[in-house]
Amino acid sequence: MQKTLSLFSFLFAACCTVQLYAGTPVQISSPGAQTRLSVDQSPSGTISYQVSFKNRPAVLPSTLGLQLKEPAVSLNSFDIIKIDSGLVDENWKPVWGEYGQIRNHAKTLSLQLVSRNEQKIRINLLFRIYEEGIAFRYQFPEQPGLQHFILGDELSTFGMSGDHKAFWIPGDYDTNEYPYNESKLSAIDATVGQRSTEIAVRSIIAPNAVQTPLMMKSSDGLYINIHEASLRNYPAMNLMLDKKSMQFKSVLVPDAVGNKAYLQAPAQSPWRSIIIADNGADILRSSMILNLNDAPAAGLDFSFVKPQKMVGVWWEMHVGKASWDYSGGQVGSQQQSRVPHGANNQNVRRYIDFASKYGFDGVLVEGWNTGWEDWFGKWKEDVFDFLTPYPDYDLNALSAYARQKNVRLIMHHETSGSVTNYERYMDRAYDLMNRHQMNTVKTGYVGRIIPRGEHHDGQWMVRHYERVAEATAKKGIMIDVHEPVRPTGLHRSFPNWLASEAARGNEFNAWSVGNAPDHETILPFTRLMGGPMDYTPGIFKIKMSHYNPAKTEQVHTTLCKQLALYITMYSPLQMAADLPENYEARPDAFQFIRDVAVDWDDTKILDAEPGDYVYIARREKGGRRWFAGGITDEQARNFILNTRFLEPGQQYLATIYRDAPGAHWKDNPEAYVIEKFIVNNRSALNLKLAAGGGFAISMVPATGDDLKQYKAYKQK
Amino acid sequence: MQKTLSLFSFLFAACCTVQLYAGTPVQISSPGAQTRLSVDQSPSGTISYQVSFKNRPAVLPSTLGLQLKEPAVSLNSFDIIKIDSGLVDENWKPVWGEYGQIRNHAKTLSLQLVSRNEQKIRINLLFRIYEEGIAFRYQFPEQPGLQHFILGDELSTFGMSGDHKAFWIPGDYDTNEYPYNESKLSAIDATVGQRSTEIAVRSIIAPNAVQTPLMMKSSDGLYINIHEASLRNYPAMNLMLDKKSMQFKSVLVPDAVGNKAYLQAPAQSPWRSIIIADNGADILRSSMILNLNDAPAAGLDFSFVKPQKMVGVWWEMHVGKASWDYSGGQVGSQQQSRVPHGANNQNVRRYIDFASKYGFDGVLVEGWNTGWEDWFGKWKEDVFDFLTPYPDYDLNALSAYARQKNVRLIMHHETSGSVTNYERYMDRAYDLMNRHQMNTVKTGYVGRIIPRGEHHDGQWMVRHYERVAEATAKKGIMIDVHEPVRPTGLHRSFPNWLASEAARGNEFNAWSVGNAPDHETILPFTRLMGGPMDYTPGIFKIKMSHYNPAKTEQVHTTLCKQLALYITMYSPLQMAADLPENYEARPDAFQFIRDVAVDWDDTKILDAEPGDYVYIARREKGGRRWFAGGITDEQARNFILNTRFLEPGQQYLATIYRDAPGAHWKDNPEAYVIEKFIVNNRSALNLKLAAGGGFAISMVPATGDDLKQYKAYKQK
Repeated sequence: MQKTLSLFSFLFAACCTVQLYAGTPVQISSPGAQTRLSVDQSPSGTISYQVSFKNRPAVLPSTLGLQLKEPAVSLNSFDIIKIDSGLVDENWKPVWGEYGQIRNHAKTLSLQLVSRNEQKIRINLLFRIYEEGIAFRYQFPEQPGLQHFILGDELSTFGMSGDHKAFWIPGDYDTNEYPYNESKLSAIDATVGQRSTEIAVRSIIAPNAVQTPLMMKSSDGLYINIHEASLRNYPAMNLMLDKKSMQFKSVLVPDAVGNKAYLQAPAQSPWRSIIIADNGADILRSSMILNLNDAPAAGLDFSFVKPQKMVGVWWEMHVGKASWDYSGGQVGSQQQSRVPHGANNQNVRRYIDFASKYGFDGVLVEGWNTGWEDWFGKWKEDVFDFLTPYPDYDLNALSAYARQKNVRLIMHHETSGSVTNYERYMDRAYDLMNRHQMNTVKTGYVGRIIPRGEHHDGQWMVRHYERVAEATAKKGIMIDVHEPVRPTGLHRSFPNWLASEAARGNEFNAWSVGNAPDHETILPFTRLMGGPMDYTPGIFKIKMSHYNPAKTEQVHTTLCKQLALYITMYSPLQMAADLPENYEARPDAFQFIRDVAVDWDDTKILDAEPGDYVYIARREKGGRRWFAGGITDEQARNFILNTRFLEPGQQYLATIYRDAPGAHWKDNPEAYVIEKFIVNNRSALNLKLAAGGGFAISMVPATGDDLKQYKAYKQK
Repeated sequence: MQKTLSLFSFLFAACCTVQLYAGTPVQISSPGAQTRLSVDQSPSGTISYQVSFKNRPAVLPSTLGLQLKEPAVSLNSFDIIKIDSGLVDENWKPVWGEYGQIRNHAKTLSLQLVSRNEQKIRINLLFRIYEEGIAFRYQFPEQPGLQHFILGDELSTFGMSGDHKAFWIPGDYDTNEYPYNESKLSAIDATVGQRSTEIAVRSIIAPNAVQTPLMMKSSDGLYINIHEASLRNYPAMNLMLDKKSMQFKSVLVPDAVGNKAYLQAPAQSPWRSIIIADNGADILRSSMILNLNDAPAAGLDFSFVKPQKMVGVWWEMHVGKASWDYSGGQVGSQQQSRVPHGANNQNVRRYIDFASKYGFDGVLVEGWNTGWEDWFGKWKEDVFDFLTPYPDYDLNALSAYARQKNVRLIMHHETSGSVTNYERYMDRAYDLMNRHQMNTVKTGYVGRIIPRGEHHDGQWMVRHYERVAEATAKKGIMIDVHEPVRPTGLHRSFPNWLASEAARGNEFNAWSVGNAPDHETILPFTRLMGGPMDYTPGIFKIKMSHYNPAKTEQVHTTLCKQLALYITMYSPLQMAADLPENYEARPDAFQFIRDVAVDWDDTKILDAEPGDYVYIARREKGGRRWFAGGITDEQARNFILNTRFLEPGQQYLATIYRDAPGAHWKDNPEAYVIEKFIVNNRSALNLKLAAGGGFAISMVPATGDDLKQYKAYKQK
């Protein structure tokens, strides 16, 4: 590393051109000095940055820049007009989240640059230096020479210091639903994605391209996570690896004609985030992505937003018991078998009764509306109207029945990727929801996008997701978006955006090769870095042979791991995804799903290693109950859970749901044991996780009765 | 020509495969035997057609077929399953038009075909044989092997018998606003379109590609017009000329990814129409395009539709006196000069007063809404909301004032080509119109289309125009669509679709090289074959130097030719496009515009030659008044108008508006003479048209006073 120069020696008036000379970069450290950023300018005007973490190199010198297409200008060589630094330190309370309060604490560095060419285009390069990493973004200030412009490329690079281990999925313009790969960077081969024929639409970019959030681990134990924050009015970023230099370059998702973004100054890119730690748990502890997003816009009122649990007419389609379409031909695997239409009055009443009896907030009903008979894979524009129920679905009666039972129907808007069509009907569809007091909608984008040539992760669709978030916010509606671009913390700005899918969900287990046992240990380090996922946990009947003896598919899990996911896969919208009869057959295990909170005042990442295990404890929002969950990959493990997070002096009744001896995700997945203990903040629970297994624990301040019963039990 | 075989010998049961052998084609003649169609099948299964007119070859043997992309199947070699023929003979009354009643009288021929390949795809080939030409279309019936499919290409050909003279504009995916070219087919060079930099968006296809309606004239005096009818859910057709064979091939407008059409069986192509005559007037007499369109859909009520005349806050922007945008920077030429905002309360009240005083139905106001400050040429999506007036435009007060004055404001929806944006606001914008009792909207599509990569004339936009026509029909709104695809007679199906622009309108004269004096003699043979045009005639101040001495632009016309256009350019929506003060300066000439009807019971094409002259007389709908108009190109002409169309025995007061001696479009354009005569059905009016000039005549059943006055005048 070069020697440190005081930043403040570089503060000049705005009118001056500042030259940084090679060997004398600007260096700035995080408030606690753990992370250090260095920004340098070459004699030719190229700007580069590098990052160290606890004095170990995390990002090697990496150049920054942009290429404009209209006007055609290269922005890769600059004069520096001004350098400024500062400090952000604020506490804010999310509407919902893993923590009741979040501290945003970072040094800031901004460089005002002007391009070294005749166009003299001004851009600002903003950095934030957090304890756990850095972020940067490009800003295009208002200026006479740049009003509307088309971005041809972003030239951000990320130089890795070695051939790290990486948890990656193929770079793709349309889908995030690949299984994860764990390999050295040098072994990345995104063409494996071509095998994932179970994904409706794939647009693999190149063999060396991967998606963010990209989780890496260096051979000397640095954990590095690259992603982006506040992706608005801009395409998503993929990363292209140069295997010789081990440097990534940004690859933005193009539009139908190959352009990347249509911008109007003032404009800005999302933040590019690099989170760094020397252990896995610290990666999961980071709130950097949220901190890089904006607070909700002043005019929007999110007081209606409420984290929730739901059941739904949904898994029965995936397991092939029921159909989305009225004629009975559409099941999860898209096979043309004939099964009953799931969204019929009688069946929906059954779910409403179930939800009401067990205290769920909502009942999702998919397949309620016309269009499913011809919705899949046709690139058909006029497919759904989001207004017309099938004849066996009495929307008026059912929504009245739900209200009477103190449950809300959750609306479903599958667009089939025909977004022009959805935008024509959106307003009316939300009005219909308002009339029926339905305040949550699950949207879906399965299929090639219309406008044809646009991609799920391009600027046009990014704007669409924002538009939906804003339109629903104004109508008092919460959203759960399936098949969108990967989240980047926008739920801070739109707290009605409860969750997204944007990754390979539990459903793949029902009708494809599914998700390997390590899948859920990787997701928190990748997809979930950007925001909550509607993963749909809680499957109790693990093997599909239960429904059809000919089927070999299964969820790659034990039953207890399914319970643990309610803790390890953070979301303010959680589904109890299995069928009512499967829960009623195991009321003792089901009790955990009934009990578990969906909003938290505090979260403890107890231990975590991507691809191996995740152990987390959380305290419910506004309450004293703690819940803990742990999952493992295909390896059986022991974990000693120290409950030092509990309130000192308080006794808790801990109910432990754990894999039974002999349990195994493949051979014996549904075997579990439930035990109760009295614990306090000095307890240590020795937990055994089966291969592909997990545990879940609820810890409730103990009553006198609890203590008496426990004493009696211990004496036996 | 081959010898005629009775068609009926080819009628077989549907189950049989019929083979036509080379040399024994199916031949079928129009009801009056003037036009003859012959359809042949080659041994390899290729289907071709040829057409003769009065025993002269009009279309040489030309093959037909299609290329599908998904599934990838060539449809160019067929077995014939069934051949059938029939007769159409019906009379129908248009809601408005050039005739009170129209006869649809044609022989029909249909061929059921199955592709000679393993896919065995069935298509129907439908022909209609009219007295004045033929039409054909492809149908895709419902069938197990073809549900959703993507059209890669249409392989229709049109073999010309020689190197005809043609009136053409460059084949283009986005614009029809080119000046016309008159040349031999062999001299077609569409790259001339590259000079038309005054057109906002051009997408020239190829040097040999031209648009329809294409007007041709053979050296032996056959007039041939190729176009299409009922263009719905399909892209527009251009024609690519093979100069060796003098054969045209269809070129469909592609979408953003190069596909031509997304269809679902049952589906069909538009009709491809070939209108043939041995004189120019018969081309203009044809109602074939309308007859090939469908009657209005059963559920739609068009009783609110009313042909109308309007004035507008519009020409003052084109001449540079006022601006569309509030800050005064947007005039017709897009020059950044600062002029007053046209759509201000005071100015609009002036137009309302003017319209009310002189009996106009509507006042168009452009530039009333926010967005014009940044609307042009930016490919900007969120540009207009169609709801928010500028601060100096009090929509409530002005629409109330208009109603009080018995005039309606005409709404203006310029989309800037951002159609996704318009579709988001359409419903609310039409509701706003309904609330203000505005029942006509002028829409506009200046700019590159969004969805980006789509074209003005592609299937997606064709569907959009249909969607607008239907949505407005349901809200009781009439439409006037600027910059759409060229019309194909859809105003029969949507009589609320009063007019379109879709060609080079009068406005080009204000700020570009403009329209040559022969322009309006070509338009009826080309653009107007498909439907009415909002050409905006009636310019009295011909030279732009009137507004700015530095300007050399002018309308290429005499004043009287501007009057004649109200007759020769048929439209149920006519604008008096000039400024109120210019009309009030010449109340005698203005009287014709006040008098002229906009809906007709009868039309007489007196004589017409494309590129030279057009003389037409029309009788008003439900009345006895006749109006006549005549225009010439750059040549001065004499025309003897025989009034034999008048009611026998009835005397009429004819008011003749003609070019004054010495008038000339360039040197003396505003000189005119008005004369009154008493005429009857045996009169002959000897009319002199100046170079670039014209005449207009009103013929009103004479009153006793008229006759007395005329007698006195003749005695003088």
